[in-house]
Amino acid sequence: MRPKILVGEQHIVKVRDLEIGNPGKPIIMAGPCSVESREQIFQTAKAVKAAGAHILRGGVFKPRTSPYAFQGMGKEGLLLMREAADAVDMPIVTELMDESNLDLVYKYADIIQIGSRNMFNYSLLKVVGELDKPILLKRGMSATIQEWILAAEYIAASGNKDVILCERGIRTFDTYTRNTLDLAAVPILKMETGLPVIVDPSHGTGIRELVEPMSKAAMACGADGLMIEVHIDPDNALCDGPQSLTPEQFGKLVQAIK
Amino acid sequence: MRPKILVGEQHIVKVRDLEIGNPGKPIIMAGPCSVESREQIFQTAKAVKAAGAHILRGGVFKPRTSPYAFQGMGKEGLLLMREAADAVDMPIVTELMDESNLDLVYKYADIIQIGSRNMFNYSLLKVVGELDKPILLKRGMSATIQEWILAAEYIAASGNKDVILCERGIRTFDTYTRNTLDLAAVPILKMETGLPVIVDPSHGTGIRELVEPMSKAAMACGADGLMIEVHIDPDNALCDGPQSLTPEQFGKLVQAIK
Amino acid sequence: MRPKILVGEQHIVKVRDLEIGNPGKPIIMAGPCSVESREQIFQTAKAVKAAGAHILRGGVFKPRTSPYAFQGMGKEGLLLMREAADAVDMPIVTELMDESNLDLVYKYADIIQIGSRNMFNYSLLKVVGELDKPILLKRGMSATIQEWILAAEYIAASGNKDVILCERGIRTFDTYTRNTLDLAAVPILKMETGLPVIVDPSHGTGIRELVEPMSKAAMACGADGLMIEVHIDPDNALCDGPQSLTPEQFGKLVQAIK
Amino acid sequence: MRPKILVGEQHIVKVRDLEIGNPGKPIIMAGPCSVESREQIFQTAKAVKAAGAHILRGGVFKPRTSPYAFQGMGKEGLLLMREAADAVDMPIVTELMDESNLDLVYKYADIIQIGSRNMFNYSLLKVVGELDKPILLKRGMSATIQEWILAAEYIAASGNKDVILCERGIRTFDTYTRNTLDLAAVPILKMETGLPVIVDPSHGTGIRELVEPMSKAAMACGADGLMIEVHIDPDNALCDGPQSLTPEQFGKLVQAIK
Repeated sequence: MRPKILVGEQHIVKVRDLEIGNPGKPIIMAGPCSVESREQIFQTAKAVKAAGAHILRGGVFKPRTSPYAFQGMGKEGLLLMREAADAVDMPIVTELMDESNLDLVYKYADIIQIGSRNMFNYSLLKVVGELDKPILLKRGMSATIQEWILAAEYIAASGNKDVILCERGIRTFDTYTRNTLDLAAVPILKMETGLPVIVDPSHGTGIRELVEPMSKAAMACGADGLMIEVHIDPDNALCDGPQSLTPEQFGKLVQAIK
Repeated sequence: MRPKILVGEQHIVKVRDLEIGNPGKPIIMAGPCSVESREQIFQTAKAVKAAGAHILRGGVFKPRTSPYAFQGMGKEGLLLMREAADAVDMPIVTELMDESNLDLVYKYADIIQIGSRNMFNYSLLKVVGELDKPILLKRGMSATIQEWILAAEYIAASGNKDVILCERGIRTFDTYTRNTLDLAAVPILKMETGLPVIVDPSHGTGIRELVEPMSKAAMACGADGLMIEVHIDPDNALCDGPQSLTPEQFGKLVQAIK
Repeated sequence: MRPKILVGEQHIVKVRDLEIGNPGKPIIMAGPCSVESREQIFQTAKAVKAAGAHILRGGVFKPRTSPYAFQGMGKEGLLLMREAADAVDMPIVTELMDESNLDLVYKYADIIQIGSRNMFNYSLLKVVGELDKPILLKRGMSATIQEWILAAEYIAASGNKDVILCERGIRTFDTYTRNTLDLAAVPILKMETGLPVIVDPSHGTGIRELVEPMSKAAMACGADGLMIEVHIDPDNALCDGPQSLTPEQFGKLVQAIK
Repeated sequence: MRPKILVGEQHIVKVRDLEIGNPGKPIIMAGPCSVESREQIFQTAKAVKAAGAHILRGGVFKPRTSPYAFQGMGKEGLLLMREAADAVDMPIVTELMDESNLDLVYKYADIIQIGSRNMFNYSLLKVVGELDKPILLKRGMSATIQEWILAAEYIAASGNKDVILCERGIRTFDTYTRNTLDLAAVPILKMETGLPVIVDPSHGTGIRELVEPMSKAAMACGADGLMIEVHIDPDNALCDGPQSLTPEQFGKLVQAIK
């Protein structure tokens, strides 16, 4: 099973005046796991922009393992995030969980994220394949590289070639880290598809102290960008606190990358 | 993260006059991977009924790894399958891939299957949680048992406790079998949730010769039923031929189980 | 890479008057994880014999993850185990960890076990391949079935065809059980090698309550025997207490298997 | 289970005038999978020395999956390798498979390698723990980081603290690469043990084209060195040809690292 459309030619995805996939110009997406409040997202947007982030990330529709866990702020969160990003003139990326929120997410987001749990959701891939906005496709937690490429091909086959691939770790036997970050996927995907590849070391390790070394490693093997979780108060974050950087730590990371 | 609703009390799911989860009375679901033609599904329905199957299985909306692979017959296939099952007076189980086909599948299917690739699709789980028909929830290919139970809890938390769990193998390093059938999940799920648990040794191994021994093993450790792929001409099946039994082989399996 | 010697012909391994690999006559090996004291091993030997076990198992040289954990009673434990087994007229199986104890283990054991951690220790496999006593070869925790067969072939290629294969679970992402018991390996190994295959549901699950259902499943898919951990006082066992049965529970298991 | 001796203090391992673990001064080990002939090892030694390698690697006792595969040149190979290394004034690292060759390997090697298949061979770890030469401990193919650290602790607890850890990829479900290189292990091991950590991207990926990007990534996240397979004629190598660099490719890699 080979892709027909995504076959190794270099492809740059444009978001406003940003170019994702331009060698030597890494794009950094940063922000909280979840939008939690007006104050939190405005402060975060301002801080990550000042530190050098290019795109604001944040979840408003959250796929959580337990039905009793915080499920995200929904539309209200999306509007807050849009407002906060506009205040500092940043594009935003946020996850679309299902078709029912398609119009909403399409209207307010600049990049639409398909999360790990939906990478095999071919119906959703076909739907976003009909859009004219870039799609950030996270790797499924146990997806082979071949399956991941073919998931991207589903999007391309529906008409949308603006796919950004995001390595975020795979599931293995080890329990020290939350996931096992598979950085070899970066050069493989560049060879096989030509698509921009970014790395999420926050989910990929689950451990704050590992975010900087793994960000450097990602850059060194050819990643086109990073997705980093940043929270103004990680100890009180509603989700993913242990893997979130403070704005100050994030600032140091951006400097280290440059 | 603990379930609140699904907490270990024995629960029987009723489908017409069948009881799924009744100790000592295993329920056998059988049929092709995909509905391929009127002749194929009518012949199969007749054959599996004669051999002792209780429920006809068959896919019409197929989640395939490649966008260029056969994607199923869709509505036409569903109507054919319904007709074939009615001709031999059997209930049917078929997969729902997304909300767009909900009304259709709800109307014609007796049990609605959520496939492995959608086990983490919490939006879809909430949607089928509002239905008054039984849901067959396959284990995600890399879902922990805990995550699987909580996926079932999503359905229950939306109002539908009629969930049947189906072990179909997990993804491991070994390549001899298509998946690694995790039979210990059967007694664990019975202890933890009380829900009916069935086993799919066809996907769980991917190898025809292993279907009978693993069916026996599933029964021996307490499974409430089996889901078996049967094809009238496995060598020419549009999908999953190598793991499909002929009707004759299936007949021998049913006898062996009894 | 194919085996040349172990190629599917049915092979029965004889230990005194026992035949391992004789269809319909399962052999049960039972005993403690570790020999801990004279009283413990004598009581256990008597109890498992009375309950129907055929062979006494017990570790005296223990491969432990930490260098600071109990490493087994060594020679003293082996002599105690031999004495206890003789008192009830049972053969014994115990693990050989390295060549330095070869003469000792060869002298006192009836079956020599190669543990999971040594399945890839080809030097040791060659050494035991030169012996005229049966070898019980446990599957490596991440060994493919193919690699396991070739490990057995190492033993056979050195001259010893009396190999008993023991499935004891593989390492996967799931954390509910200690290992994932891969029962499909049983019929595969019978087809591929013809060697006797036994199953260790104690290590294979790590959970006492799962030992009986998984023992039944093992029998149902064609296993030639079982290896079960039994301890007279599991709560105070020096290792593997949570997966050990009491003699009473073991007695019920033996009855259930028959 | 915590280590007692290896607890995070920075430790440098000295081999002749080389310091392994000195920040900013990466050590490069290079050479063939196997010593195959006098000409091959002499040419290779000369070439890798010229390209900038510090230590010559090469296998003479080879743990192979099949008993019928090439098992290494043994003592003859070791003597050739020693001679070739002396001709260009390099230390050598080679694998010790078992105690029977201990004196030989101790006499001729500068660093003694314990391979992946023997990481759990605690008897062998204790034996090399009594030596006064550095030990290169490769990660077991399914060893958790915690188990790996405790394996190193076995060596240290026997008296030898000069352990170099080598990440060489772990076994996962993906089949694109030979193993999944777990680079997050590098900063984790540096934090937890203070030991030098090197990376083997040749085994870690199994694909020649990935050796350079993953070498750069290893350096970027803090590795103290690399182990690289180099062969003068990869297409005719007796093992691991597809992952071996030519001397010319290796020269480019060394430049890229600097």
